[in-house]
Amino acid sequence: MSSKYKDSGVDIDAAGKALKGIGKLVKGTFRKEVLSQVGNFGGLFTMPEGLKEPVLVSSIDGVGTKLRLAFMTGRHDTVGEDLVNHCVNDILVQGAGPLFFLDYFGCGKLEGDVIEAVVAGLARGCANNGCALIGGETAEMPGFYTEGEYDLAGCIIGVVERGELITGERIEDGDEIWAFPSSGLHTNGYSLARKIVFEEAGLSVDDEVPGAGGTVADLLLAVHRSYLPEIRAMREVADVRGLAHITGGGLIDNIPRILPEGVGVVIDRSTWETPPLFRFFAEAGGVEDLEMHRVFNMGIGMVAIVPSSEAEKVLEGNYQWKPFRIGRVSADADGVELI
Amino acid sequence: MSSKYKDSGVDIDAAGKALKGIGKLVKGTFRKEVLSQVGNFGGLFTMPEGLKEPVLVSSIDGVGTKLRLAFMTGRHDTVGEDLVNHCVNDILVQGAGPLFFLDYFGCGKLEGDVIEAVVAGLARGCANNGCALIGGETAEMPGFYTEGEYDLAGCIIGVVERGELITGERIEDGDEIWAFPSSGLHTNGYSLARKIVFEEAGLSVDDEVPGAGGTVADLLLAVHRSYLPEIRAMREVADVRGLAHITGGGLIDNIPRILPEGVGVVIDRSTWETPPLFRFFAEAGGVEDLEMHRVFNMGIGMVAIVPSSEAEKVLEGNYQWKPFRIGRVSADADGVELI
Repeated sequence: MSSKYKDSGVDIDAAGKALKGIGKLVKGTFRKEVLSQVGNFGGLFTMPEGLKEPVLVSSIDGVGTKLRLAFMTGRHDTVGEDLVNHCVNDILVQGAGPLFFLDYFGCGKLEGDVIEAVVAGLARGCANNGCALIGGETAEMPGFYTEGEYDLAGCIIGVVERGELITGERIEDGDEIWAFPSSGLHTNGYSLARKIVFEEAGLSVDDEVPGAGGTVADLLLAVHRSYLPEIRAMREVADVRGLAHITGGGLIDNIPRILPEGVGVVIDRSTWETPPLFRFFAEAGGVEDLEMHRVFNMGIGMVAIVPSSEAEKVLEGNYQWKPFRIGRVSADADGVELI
Repeated sequence: MSSKYKDSGVDIDAAGKALKGIGKLVKGTFRKEVLSQVGNFGGLFTMPEGLKEPVLVSSIDGVGTKLRLAFMTGRHDTVGEDLVNHCVNDILVQGAGPLFFLDYFGCGKLEGDVIEAVVAGLARGCANNGCALIGGETAEMPGFYTEGEYDLAGCIIGVVERGELITGERIEDGDEIWAFPSSGLHTNGYSLARKIVFEEAGLSVDDEVPGAGGTVADLLLAVHRSYLPEIRAMREVADVRGLAHITGGGLIDNIPRILPEGVGVVIDRSTWETPPLFRFFAEAGGVEDLEMHRVFNMGIGMVAIVPSSEAEKVLEGNYQWKPFRIGRVSADADGVELI
């Protein structure tokens, strides 16, 4: 083809080339239900067998401004994993296991190395969660994004038997709240975190975060955890009545999303230590305690609500990251009360 | 909450306010299979009943630089419809009908009016296609997007009986190619179109496009058509062996994606008139004919391949936009040959 379309900023041939190296990574995530090949118009996935009344559970999300850490460090191979794990958790809280995933990558100009690193992260995240990376769109939009920057979003589709949906409606006064530790910020609070770290504390990406045991780059790019194995392990041994993924809004805003009318929760802050990274944010940024709990996960990535009679059973689960009790459901509490 | 997080550029409360007005629009698209409410972590959708071997067909896409026309004109209520219709067509070509849709809206700062207009378009597109708008993510990312700009992507999930999948594998020498007219550029070729219209021809959005019967704004924002009703009508009366959605790459690149080994197609350019808008691009931009056919749809939004013995049946369909024959499959052709 002539160079006319290239002049206008979009190079179809270069895009095709960048995408070829990705096919192998993507195929590595395919499950037996995948019928389509890379490059088909739409991804094809047969419904898994043996489900009586399957409910599809889906979610779409982006990585948010955590991407800026990838831009600053040139490390593009983990943000895809962040995104997949985030999405896996979002449908996990309703009881669903992942089936397949599709990603959207928007940029001003396709850079083969960058997109390949991003897709490597997506593929790793998908493979770890038994989820097929079945489709994706790579959009080259001159003038929309700053050079070297991009946006990344993804959509997950999972399935659950209707009878095994977790809705939170059985949660009642006295139930206990179990927490699974986060790996760091996960994918929330980055606008404030960057402001504190770079503007207020004046650190650079390779500096150690004082008292937090790692560099800015390592700590702020720590991969968002998937709690799929943990929740599966917990459901094998105990009656999980509700699950909340602790994302934007923190414990304060996310737990109430699953509570039935008439109950709140009381969280005992003495039951776990705030990880040093969050302590640094609070001190260096002068952020009030309540706001810290609304912007950051404070060391807790997933919360499960279980009847108090099942406490011993909960602890019998085969976990990688052991859950710990942080509070209880109470008819006297309004929303989330921190004590 | 204190204003600390607001200082860093993200305003959780304002975001919540902007999103409230959207709930009603979204609920209007819900089908009986939708179990979830707006605001749940994940969208819930029961599998439609009566399917023997359902195959889920999914696709993710963006609007591309057509968005810039929305920015220039302040008309934000059609790009969502473009996106939904584009996605509907992408799964339609494999024989699938839409079930549900999720959108991703990324911006620097949430503007309530803009996001509401965008979602209105998404909801209209979904409602017109019988597709539930089951989820969405609105990401406020300070510094990622220019003020007043955004990116919009969406993911569609549809379903088809395995036995009714359209794969193109039955296409053979002698089959005929039927075309459905496009409404304009649909969502492809905008980088070149904008370069020609604004830079080379020096037009502004409110100027008439010479000879094309409308303003730049009206013609370049014409909504991408959904061919769902047309293809349903055609399948009722004829054996549709292959379907190609004419997007980026035009007739030249999209038709070969569905052809089996050993055949190409011959397209007779005398069978339809190039719409005046595309003639204007070719003349004002000095774009070669082959490139025109690779960058633009040239007036054809969807192509169906049907055995020649079914030509009369095809014409019996109850169409809104009547299909016309533009060529045939040939064992002697290599890829797409324009005559």
